[in-house]
Formats: sequence, C-alpha cells, structure tokens
Amino acid sequence: MKPEAAHQADDDAAARRRVVVDLGMRSYDILIGPGLVDAAGEEIARRLPGVRAAVVTDETVAGLHLDRLSIALRAAGIDHSTVVLPAGEPTKSFEHLTRVVDAVLAQRLERDDAVIALGGGVVGDLAGFASAIARRGMRFVQMPTTLLAQVDSSVGGKTGINSPRGKNLIGAFHQPALVLADTALLDTLSPREFAAGYAEIVKYGLIDRPEFFDWLERSREAIFAGGPERAEAIRQSCEAKAAVVAVDEREHAGRALLNLGHTFGHALEAAVGYDSRRLVHGEGVAIGMTLAYRFSTELGLCPAADAGRGEAHLRAAGLPTRIAEIPGGPLSTAQLMTGIAQDKKVKRGHLTFILTRGIGQAFVESDVAPAAVEAFLDRELAR
Amino acid sequence: MKPEAAHQADDDAAARRRVVVDLGMRSYDILIGPGLVDAAGEEIARRLPGVRAAVVTDETVAGLHLDRLSIALRAAGIDHSTVVLPAGEPTKSFEHLTRVVDAVLAQRLERDDAVIALGGGVVGDLAGFASAIARRGMRFVQMPTTLLAQVDSSVGGKTGINSPRGKNLIGAFHQPALVLADTALLDTLSPREFAAGYAEIVKYGLIDRPEFFDWLERSREAIFAGGPERAEAIRQSCEAKAAVVAVDEREHAGRALLNLGHTFGHALEAAVGYDSRRLVHGEGVAIGMTLAYRFSTELGLCPAADAGRGEAHLRAAGLPTRIAEIPGGPLSTAQLMTGIAQDKKVKRGHLTFILTRGIGQAFVESDVAPAAVEAFLDRELAR
Ligand SMILES: NC(=O)c1ccc[n+]([C@@H]2O[C@H](COP(=O)([O-])OP(=O)(O)OC[C@H]3O[C@@H](n4cnc5c(N)ncnc54)[C@H](O)[C@@H]3O)[C@@H](O)[C@H]2O)c1
Ligand SMILES: NC(=O)c1ccc[n+]([C@@H]2O[C@H](COP(=O)([O-])OP(=O)(O)OC[C@H]3O[C@@H](n4cnc5c(N)ncnc54)[C@H](O)[C@@H]3O)[C@@H](O)[C@H]2O)c1
Ligand SMILES: [Zn+2]
Ligand SMILES: [Zn+2]
Repeated sequence: MKPEAAHQADDDAAARRRVVVDLGMRSYDILIGPGLVDAAGEEIARRLPGVRAAVVTDETVAGLHLDRLSIALRAAGIDHSTVVLPAGEPTKSFEHLTRVVDAVLAQRLERDDAVIALGGGVVGDLAGFASAIARRGMRFVQMPTTLLAQVDSSVGGKTGINSPRGKNLIGAFHQPALVLADTALLDTLSPREFAAGYAEIVKYGLIDRPEFFDWLERSREAIFAGGPERAEAIRQSCEAKAAVVAVDEREHAGRALLNLGHTFGHALEAAVGYDSRRLVHGEGVAIGMTLAYRFSTELGLCPAADAGRGEAHLRAAGLPTRIAEIPGGPLSTAQLMTGIAQDKKVKRGHLTFILTRGIGQAFVESDVAPAAVEAFLDRELAR
Repeated sequence: MKPEAAHQADDDAAARRRVVVDLGMRSYDILIGPGLVDAAGEEIARRLPGVRAAVVTDETVAGLHLDRLSIALRAAGIDHSTVVLPAGEPTKSFEHLTRVVDAVLAQRLERDDAVIALGGGVVGDLAGFASAIARRGMRFVQMPTTLLAQVDSSVGGKTGINSPRGKNLIGAFHQPALVLADTALLDTLSPREFAAGYAEIVKYGLIDRPEFFDWLERSREAIFAGGPERAEAIRQSCEAKAAVVAVDEREHAGRALLNLGHTFGHALEAAVGYDSRRLVHGEGVAIGMTLAYRFSTELGLCPAADAGRGEAHLRAAGLPTRIAEIPGGPLSTAQLMTGIAQDKKVKRGHLTFILTRGIGQAFVESDVAPAAVEAFLDRELAR
C-alpha cells in the first residue's frame, strides 16, 4: 500500500492539465494543477537538462511557498540562487530590474540557464524582463502564484516594468520555456485577489466563448472552493489567451479583443491614482466589462438580458460592477474621459472600444464618438 | 547648368552602395556612401512615412555633425528631439539607458516611431537597446559615424550596455529598420580610431575572403584617403557580416568565426583594464589576429608567409601587431591566460580559438590545450 503522500501526488498528477502554446520552434507547455511546486524540479530538469537557475520571488510569496520550491529544485539537482523582492507594483522599476539582472550575472548564469519567476504578475513581468535582457536573453520559467498571473500575465510573453511616465512602458517580448501553474498555491491568496483574477477568466467567456461562460455560471463556486473545476477554468483561460498569442506574438492588432473592459478599467485605475486599496486591476476590469456591455446595450447592439447576465455573474463572484462602488469619494466623467483618451490613441477624434452583440460576441469598434461615451458615463456615475 | 552643390549631391548619390540584410519580413537596407547625412530625412521618410524620432548622439559627434542631420530631418518633415550623451564607453550604463528611454517616452513616441543613433558603437549599442525596450520595441535607425560602427557594430542587431560584472552583458537583439553609413563623416575621426576600425575590415578578409584581402592590400591607401574604395571596403565588410547574421540572427554558433583575433584581443583589453589610452578595441583585434595567425603557424596549420602577410598589412595601416607595443608597462602570460579563460567558456579543460590554415581560411578549433597557448604567449611576450 502506498503512503498517504504518494497517493496525494498520484491524484495531483491525474488532475493536471496541459496547454501547448504554439510558437513553432519556441512552443512551450503550460502545466496546470495542484502540487506542481513539488514537481517543479523534475518538470524543469526534464525539459532543460543541466540548467542552473535564479529564483525571483516577492517577500509574501517567499514566506509562503519558497521553501517547497527550493526543496523540489534541489531534489532534481538544480543549482539555484534566490532573489526576494518587496511585494507590490512599485517593484516593477528600473531599480529592481538592475538588482535582478545583477544577481543573475553575479551567479555567472549563461544563456542556457534559467530565471524562475515564483509570484504574481509583478514578479513575472519583472523577472521575465530581466531574463530577456541578461546576456541578451536567457531561459525563463513562469511559476504564477496569483489567479491573475495564472490566467493572464504568465501567458503571452509580455514582460516589463513601469516608467514614471506610465505603466508597462518598458519591456520586451520574451516567451517562457515552461509555465507551471500550481492551482493549490491560490489557497493562500486573499479572497479579493482571487476574485480580481476571476474577472479575467470571465473575460474570456464574455469575449468569444459563450459555452465557457455558461459553464462558469455553473462552476463558479467549485472554482473558488478549489475543486478540479479550478484547474479546468484556468486551462480554458490559458487556451483562450494562447490561441490569440500564437496568431499575434508581438501584439500588432489581433490581441485587441483581450482588452474587453480594459479601456474603462484603466481609466478607473488612473482616476483612483492606482491606489489598490480603492481598486485592484481585476475589479476595474469587472466594472469595465459591465460598462462595455451596458454601453453596447445603449447603442442598441446587445440585448439588455446579456448585459444583465454578465453583471450578475461578476457580482456573484464578489466583484464590483458599478463605478459608485469604488470607495474613497466619487469620480467624475471628466476624469474618466481623460483616462480613456490616454489609454487608447484617439484617431481623428474617434475612440476605439471593444463592444459586444451579446455574451461571447465581442468586437472592435474604432468609430466611437467621445460625446456618446461622455453621456453614457454621466448616467452610469449616477447609477 | 546645375549649381556646384547639386553636382556634389549627384556625385554622392552615384557613389552610394547598398547592402540588403536578409531577415525575411524584417529585412533592411544598409546604405553606404558620402553625403548620406544630408539625405537621411528623405531616406527615412520614404521607408517610414509619418515617423517621429528621437536622435541619440554623443557630445563629440553632436558638435561635428548633428546640425546637418537635424536640418535634413526637418526638411523631410520628421519631427524629432535630440538626446546628447557624454562620449565614451562608460555611457553604456543603466543610468544613461534610463535617460534615453525616458526621453523617448516623454516625447510620447509610439512603437512605429524611431530612435535614430548618430554616433559610434557606444551610441548605437545604447540607443538600439533603448529602442528595443521602450514600448517593448520601437523602430530603430543606425547612423554609424565611426569606421568600427560602419563595418561591425551597426550590422547584426546586437544592442546593449555594460554591467559592472562585464562588457555587453545586458542587452537585446533588435534589428534596425535602416542603416545609413555616411562615409564622409569618417574624415573627422582620429587616425587612431580610423585604423582601429580598419582592423575589423581586415578581419573579414582574414576569415574567409582571400580576394578581399588581396584587394585591401592594393586599396588600403585609397580607403584611408577617402576615395570611392572606402565605401567599397565598407560595403564588402557589411556584406560579410550580414551574410553571417542572416544565417544566425540570435548568435547561437554560426557567428563564431567573427571572433577571429577577439579571444586574444579581449584578453589584452582586460589586461590593460580597458584603458583606451593604452589600447583601443581594434588595436587589440589587430594584435589578436596576428597572434591567431602566428599561433596557427606554430601549430603547423598555417604557412609562415601568410601570417607574415597579415601582420605586414596591419602594420602598414598603422596598427600594432605585437603585445610589447602596448604602452604602459609589460603584460604577463598569467594575466592574459586569466582573460582568455574568462572570455571563452573552458570546456573540460580545453579552449576554443579561431585558428587558420592561411589567408581567408579561418576555422573554429575547440580543442586547444591551455599549456600550448601559455608556451606560445611566453615566446610572443618576448618578441
Ligand atoms: N504580462 C502580461 O501580459 C500582464 C497581463 C496582465 C497583468 N500584468 C501585470 O501583472 C501585475 C499584477 O499581477 P498580480 O495581480 O498577480 O499582482 P502581484 O504580483 O502584485 O500579486 C498580488 C499580491 O498577491 C501576493 N501573492 C502572490 N501570490 C500569492 C499567493 N499564492 N498567496 C498569497 N499572496 C500571494 C503578492 O505578494 C502581492 O502582494 C501588474 O503589474 C500588471 O501590469 C501583466
Ligand atoms: N553591437 C555590436 O555588434 C558591436 C560590435 C562591435 C563593437 N561594439 C561596441 O562598439 C563600441 C565601440 O564603438 P566605437 O569604436 O565606435 O566607439 P565610440 O562610439 O566610443 O566612438 C569612439 C570615439 O569616436 C568619437 N566619434 C564618433 N564618430 C566620430 C566622428 N565621425 N568624428 C569624430 N569623432 C567621432 C566618439 O565620440 C568617441 O569618442 C563598444 O562599446 C563595443 O562594445 C558593438
Ligand atoms: Zn487585465
Ligand atoms: Zn571587434
């Protein structure tokens, strides 16, 4: 009879899912499931034999999960150092980038060696960028530990840091060699961060996967509770994003639909000064998607029932859907219009938005009159 | 009858040469010839209609040539800013990288806009890297103003900065949209810098273009004097490098032969602490190539006459070819062996060198015994 732990490992392996990101020679696997941290050494060593590594993480994640990863790497004979950064968005800076690159070079890692990012989107974006520029490009392994990172930021190869002039303005496209999304690590995430990541999952349904949205309506509770539906939801999300990335690796135009809810969402984030106590990104996206659906309804494009269904699902997940729900004092239409104009290039006086004809029927509309958005926002602010 | 200036422009255009770097969708032109600074606006605007630009240069080059470029860009309606950096290798730092990226973002340039590098390899490497990471990659135009930059650093897409841990350890592969090599700008270059760049031209002959080497022996004086042979020598050099780059864009292995003379050369540069008063890169390469040829002769691979011919040509160009010529006190074999071990990965106790069977017959030898190199250097130091 096998001991308990071995049973658990067998069950975990059976629950595991795999998505292949198809980029020709640079195709890579995304493995999704519980217990992948403990299997990380083995999975990495199998794909990158002889690799040495620098593990980049933040203080919060280090306290919770770094030891297990170190043990797994050591067990697979992967010589590694660790760099622990402060948690939070301000870490995506030139200063911390320099620090990570220097640590990698100090360890004398070569181009075939790897940077391993263990953390949320902040760690993934920063460590990925460091791996893109140290020795003009090293190998990179993503181990996303937030739901947002597992379904969004770890897929697609966008890496980077913030500039005082704006978010994510400095970076590189650099694809990982492997993504390991341990779904059990999400159990330590705050409910608020989990819900925020869930907004991006709902996004894939609302864009162009109506059956996935139906399934989410039925499976939401199990996903939050950590059942096998969680890995399945993440798999479908990665697959949705990977399909877009395979067509448009360097983000020329094909990725536009992924911005559903993001023009409004970014304007909301900017309006609160990126104060995450008032609004985190996924919450902005939840409100933004609701606005995009409701605006589409106002324009006579989308049945009101579909907009209502989208909003109800986001609310059931504990997400805000109305501008007035943002704490810390009311926002103004003027503030939001400024953010919208900055987010998207205004082409000859017209704005580009992702609009929709119903659940899973989003499309790009590049001919939206600013006055129409303004009037709509006036009404929404009063809701 | 045309006015004098128009005649000159016609002559210049007739003297112009073109090399196409074949990288599929991202193929680009290298234009070579006198007067290209004045034609820059037109050549850029034709290829990148509507482009806006940031011109990056150094204080020395700005004083000599920036005004003409600005006039040419303005005449073609190209809105641009300029960033003037201190001249010299220390400029290839994170600090100046941040400065250039910030200037580009402050100007609100988009991904379709361009960074224009007007300067030597330092400006080209730094500005190219900035263009690679600002907005995750903008357009980039190289306007090399040193001979080294025209025949080497501006071709190939390698961009980057130095780390306190070593030269060129941080960077990106980022191909330019266009290279404009104005051969008349080289007239303001110091004879020493010109000769140093010439060493890299000779390198292409010594690697695998024996006829080109023959032609250089006949044409050296005209190249230095600024005759049409100068543009021709640069064209052949760019073609030689472009052929290698097209096969091996991201420098996996095929570029190895381009390192002829560089293992010894880098060890010499390191031994003098990168003090350019004692040794500039091209001088190190000249001595290094002579050493590679002489070492090949010692090993019974290369006729002594060929080694002598290579050395004589470099000497005629005003370049040093012996270690003892480096001013500032003698170097030791031990110092050089340390540099050699650091430059190339030592594989199971063996060193990799580019050796040769004669003029234009270089090859990679990855099985050189350190003791043989040591004994050879002992003798060379006494020469
Ligand atoms: N590259 C892309 O394509 C892309 C896409 C979307 C977002 N992003 C970027 O991602 C970032 C946001 O990512 P995020 O939401 O993951 O933020 P984050 O990395 O800051 O993580 C949020 C918080 O959760 C903590 N945390 C992480 N994992 C945990 C765990 N398992 N248990 C407990 N706490 C944990 C972190 O320490 C942090 O405090 C932004 O910088 C955004 O720009 C990038
Ligand atoms: N990217 C590559 O593939 C590659 C290849 C080889 C070398 N490099 C890099 O190139 C750099 C060396 O390049 P470099 O030799 O051109 O050095 P550089 O850019 O420092 O130029 C040498 C000096 O000449 C001055 N100068 C430039 N143009 C002039 C002109 N027309 N008239 C008068 N003065 C002028 C400069 O101000 C500087 O003082 C090194 O950093 C090296 O690492 C890169
Ligand atoms: Zn998002
Ligand atoms: Zn060189």
